[in-house]
Amino acid sequence: MSETHPQPLNGDPAARVLVAGASGFTGALAAQIVWRHPRLELAAVTSRSDAGTRLDRLYPRYRVPLELTELDLDSLEGIDAAIVAYPHGASAPTVAALRGHGVLVVDLSADFRLRDLPTYERWYGDHGAPELLEGAVYGLTELYRDELRKAELVATPGCYPTASVLALAPLAERGLLADVVIDAKQGVSGAGRGGGDAMHYVTMDENSFAYKTEGHRHRPEIEQELAALGSPAPVTFVPHLMPLDQGELASCYAQTTEPISKAEAQALYADRYADEPFVHAVEGPPGLRDVRDTNECHVYVTVEERGRVLAFAAIDNLWKGASSQAVQNLNLMLGLEETEGLT
Amino acid sequence: MSETHPQPLNGDPAARVLVAGASGFTGALAAQIVWRHPRLELAAVTSRSDAGTRLDRLYPRYRVPLELTELDLDSLEGIDAAIVAYPHGASAPTVAALRGHGVLVVDLSADFRLRDLPTYERWYGDHGAPELLEGAVYGLTELYRDELRKAELVATPGCYPTASVLALAPLAERGLLADVVIDAKQGVSGAGRGGGDAMHYVTMDENSFAYKTEGHRHRPEIEQELAALGSPAPVTFVPHLMPLDQGELASCYAQTTEPISKAEAQALYADRYADEPFVHAVEGPPGLRDVRDTNECHVYVTVEERGRVLAFAAIDNLWKGASSQAVQNLNLMLGLEETEGLT
Amino acid sequence: MSETHPQPLNGDPAARVLVAGASGFTGALAAQIVWRHPRLELAAVTSRSDAGTRLDRLYPRYRVPLELTELDLDSLEGIDAAIVAYPHGASAPTVAALRGHGVLVVDLSADFRLRDLPTYERWYGDHGAPELLEGAVYGLTELYRDELRKAELVATPGCYPTASVLALAPLAERGLLADVVIDAKQGVSGAGRGGGDAMHYVTMDENSFAYKTEGHRHRPEIEQELAALGSPAPVTFVPHLMPLDQGELASCYAQTTEPISKAEAQALYADRYADEPFVHAVEGPPGLRDVRDTNECHVYVTVEERGRVLAFAAIDNLWKGASSQAVQNLNLMLGLEETEGLT
Amino acid sequence: MSETHPQPLNGDPAARVLVAGASGFTGALAAQIVWRHPRLELAAVTSRSDAGTRLDRLYPRYRVPLELTELDLDSLEGIDAAIVAYPHGASAPTVAALRGHGVLVVDLSADFRLRDLPTYERWYGDHGAPELLEGAVYGLTELYRDELRKAELVATPGCYPTASVLALAPLAERGLLADVVIDAKQGVSGAGRGGGDAMHYVTMDENSFAYKTEGHRHRPEIEQELAALGSPAPVTFVPHLMPLDQGELASCYAQTTEPISKAEAQALYADRYADEPFVHAVEGPPGLRDVRDTNECHVYVTVEERGRVLAFAAIDNLWKGASSQAVQNLNLMLGLEETEGLT
Repeated sequence: MSETHPQPLNGDPAARVLVAGASGFTGALAAQIVWRHPRLELAAVTSRSDAGTRLDRLYPRYRVPLELTELDLDSLEGIDAAIVAYPHGASAPTVAALRGHGVLVVDLSADFRLRDLPTYERWYGDHGAPELLEGAVYGLTELYRDELRKAELVATPGCYPTASVLALAPLAERGLLADVVIDAKQGVSGAGRGGGDAMHYVTMDENSFAYKTEGHRHRPEIEQELAALGSPAPVTFVPHLMPLDQGELASCYAQTTEPISKAEAQALYADRYADEPFVHAVEGPPGLRDVRDTNECHVYVTVEERGRVLAFAAIDNLWKGASSQAVQNLNLMLGLEETEGLT
Repeated sequence: MSETHPQPLNGDPAARVLVAGASGFTGALAAQIVWRHPRLELAAVTSRSDAGTRLDRLYPRYRVPLELTELDLDSLEGIDAAIVAYPHGASAPTVAALRGHGVLVVDLSADFRLRDLPTYERWYGDHGAPELLEGAVYGLTELYRDELRKAELVATPGCYPTASVLALAPLAERGLLADVVIDAKQGVSGAGRGGGDAMHYVTMDENSFAYKTEGHRHRPEIEQELAALGSPAPVTFVPHLMPLDQGELASCYAQTTEPISKAEAQALYADRYADEPFVHAVEGPPGLRDVRDTNECHVYVTVEERGRVLAFAAIDNLWKGASSQAVQNLNLMLGLEETEGLT
Repeated sequence: MSETHPQPLNGDPAARVLVAGASGFTGALAAQIVWRHPRLELAAVTSRSDAGTRLDRLYPRYRVPLELTELDLDSLEGIDAAIVAYPHGASAPTVAALRGHGVLVVDLSADFRLRDLPTYERWYGDHGAPELLEGAVYGLTELYRDELRKAELVATPGCYPTASVLALAPLAERGLLADVVIDAKQGVSGAGRGGGDAMHYVTMDENSFAYKTEGHRHRPEIEQELAALGSPAPVTFVPHLMPLDQGELASCYAQTTEPISKAEAQALYADRYADEPFVHAVEGPPGLRDVRDTNECHVYVTVEERGRVLAFAAIDNLWKGASSQAVQNLNLMLGLEETEGLT
Repeated sequence: MSETHPQPLNGDPAARVLVAGASGFTGALAAQIVWRHPRLELAAVTSRSDAGTRLDRLYPRYRVPLELTELDLDSLEGIDAAIVAYPHGASAPTVAALRGHGVLVVDLSADFRLRDLPTYERWYGDHGAPELLEGAVYGLTELYRDELRKAELVATPGCYPTASVLALAPLAERGLLADVVIDAKQGVSGAGRGGGDAMHYVTMDENSFAYKTEGHRHRPEIEQELAALGSPAPVTFVPHLMPLDQGELASCYAQTTEPISKAEAQALYADRYADEPFVHAVEGPPGLRDVRDTNECHVYVTVEERGRVLAFAAIDNLWKGASSQAVQNLNLMLGLEETEGLT
């Protein structure tokens, strides 16, 4: 493998893309997806902690033979777009600088997900670029497709909100949600690199537990989106870890404002997602293996005897829950086919 | 290892115990626990499908060097008690026969768990010994300790009801439960032997999904017990499988009939379980590894911002969820220390 | 997904391909690879046991929306090539019939791997089409590329021989092998569908063991190929199972006919595999994660203090060890780029 | 649980035992085994990095309610024996100090395993207490039982040497070993706490690889012991990691100085281990699950067609490979039953 080995592109690339923070799980995967994308050129991969290392040393399975460099905001010439995979809080200033250079940005952090500044400040602390909040588009593709085509700054949703909101959107859009409990389960990759003994193989093997039971930052994000769809319902949200690598299952328990039958609910979901390339209403409880390493979301809905609606969504937390959804949105921003490079 | 290798007993055994159906996961573990028990003698292990095989061939790790035989109801001489690990429906007639011979019975099936015959029939079909229902004691030790001391037939609770009811009992006993959602997760051993391709390593590895979303037999059992405690609340119950062997986590989301604070709830739980040898109110969300291969149940309760109570219980589904709880109850029935052979 | 959903092909398909025995692990994966292949058309998928079922029901993650049918040897019109994934022994007669109709065949069974009929009969029993043995080409692509371009019947190597021979080929070609021990480890998918309790998640979880220690059918196959390369050395071969799904590691311990230094050995390997698209001489012991879901083989060689050569090869047993190598060979047989549909 | 909760002892304790370095995997397990031991009293648990933390916070599943303190060599009054679980190199000075106070020591590090100082220095660097080497007894119980009864300083063997030497001892004792290849596989707990991203769940999940292929410190230890038994044969030793927690499998491939048949080898092993309480010659390749959480070692031997002997040993690397073997030896040093507290 040569360091200058170019991917075969179909004609000229639609954009030259920088991935900033490419040494973490989601940044590295985003880099790989861009690398293999038939219409994008991976112009650079950056990382403060691992600068000087080739990305395929850190992640051999991704096969991206580029050297990680330090991000230099003064040499962005020729960069059309950036995917930023920085920690919450650290992202905003860099995103602002990139936008200042006219670079299209898809941000993987939480910094531009919450439209309400006080809510952001409560859960994340000071915001580094509040002036950009208004223009940012929430990148849950299936809900904001039109806005995304014109967006210059996209906030990729959190992995839990992606699965949870897709599980509930058909109901929320009809204003049907009265009360929602979301029990979410995720593989260990969701915890990111690092983590020390808490993420040691020996700690997680044959183990499972809830965490952040006193409040998780993804709850206000889920509530924001359900309200935006028409159902400002209170949400109880509890995440769990499971002993697997990639995969996330949101099990949602909803009380509705008016009764809905199982047949009606299933028809509603089938209809809502009939034309979606990546979200499928399936015929039984979805399994994580069926969506691993894909941008897909499998959704199943049913209604129990006494009328509570049960809705399940399975995604790959690193793909549809982060990196591939980022590229799905970038495709739209660049006027490409939404599915390009993702199937 | 010799086939007649006796366990070292502290004095005379308190009882000679038969384990019927010892080739399944829960029967085999029950046999092991009895085998190592300082006051019990494992008199025989039976199995229709595996008769003639030594148990330590099927389950080397349990180290029980007895040969499985076919159950002969005409030669029960000297048998004081039996643990029956038959499938639902198949258990009742054998239990009736054993009781007819005066043998104390701890049944691991569902046949004597539901007190209401029509409810049993709806979920399980015809009942083989309905006349025994009234005298059967529900073997959730922490709730029925006094009755268990006098019991002659004990129905070991289902694994999900064990975790779920222990998670909710302190609230239920105060009549506080208004509405309950239980999202339960279990390792693959909960599915039992057999299962074919559905339980193949390749199917379950890196996988997780909900199942029986249209109704699981453990729901009426949970509702029965919560009502018996004082909270006849409707229960939504959905089980999931996770890629691990032994372990079960019940995540319970309860709306209460009157507000309760986090401090009050935690004090209530700490108090309720303060003297329990096996159930512990712990200080954070319980993990499965902490209870594996034990009769313990770790319970954690908290209350979210808007007042919903979150209660979590972790058990080993084969131990406290089945076989060790059976021995815990047998200890009581025989007048032994409840903890004997279980620590 | 429509049942007639065609894959987008680059121009006319190079061949219409049948996958026979598509309900097993390797057949199903072969069907998926053909389905996504830009130059092949998946004409039909067959299965005796699962006829009438759509393949994406059995293997949702492969997303092949075709219905399995029974193989009808009288209606092969328009079929140019077949990948046959039948059990050993059952394959030969079907392969003979397909060849009789002029269909190019890539066989995944062992039926045409051993060139010596008595050796086949010793390890597998009677042979159903011995007259085809002479014309069959052994499908270890990196060794038989020229023959494969002209082949009409290809025997895909066993998964263990693929990894083992690739690990040892550079030495074998120089006649350097004097004695070889191969300790091979494989994930549970290598055992195939079925398997009952032996392959139950609970059996294999946290477990590992050697098997077939008294002799495994892949040993004569490995010896045949090493001899063909120039090193008729005796081979000790022991396979093991590990608790993972896909992946195989062959650890080879070779005594050489003359001393070779670590630097010489590494140069030999680097040189031998420099131009291979899928086999890479890597710089340290290869890991299974790096080759999962790929047609790649990572090889590492070193020499210990006293002169024994250690050679390691990692592959995905279902991919390079079976199904993707079958397509790699089919590409050659059809005059396509060897890498087409595999990167 | 009270911090002063004493274990129930059978009469007076035989010894008051300190576990130094109790916050690592092997030290913590040693503390648990001592804690539950019917004849020992766990007097203190020490740790530099985690002093002030209760051990059952770090390892809830071990249920040892003692606070970790810093080791104070000036206040060892009443301490009869110590198990030292320090890193290699760091152990020797502390062991020397403890011995200076008359404390019996079982050391879990490598510092006293190699009898030859230059060999130690080559693999580990400077030795902190070479004057103690001569008096140290190598704690592979089954080989040095008589010496261990009189020992005051015992070096617990490495986990790999434990399995490897037990697999080969019956042959070595007859002087039969001419050449040995050992391919060893171990679960991730063998790597100890820490390890960072290399031991992250995501790194090891579905992964396996060889490591230390250019030379592992356990090789000279294995060679030392085989020579001591009568077979000074060269050893090739390569360790591998597998995706599981506890368990170790040594697969040994031996050429013998004179031919031995399978029947002779199996009789030799059956005879050699007939009276061993923890080492069993089993009838087929041993599996890790059968020995997990035990002090057992399962050994299987067979001979292949051309005469190479295959010997397999399975242990739990944390138990027989470290902590429980330490207590097995301590039992002997104290004149207790060897099996006490270990069954």
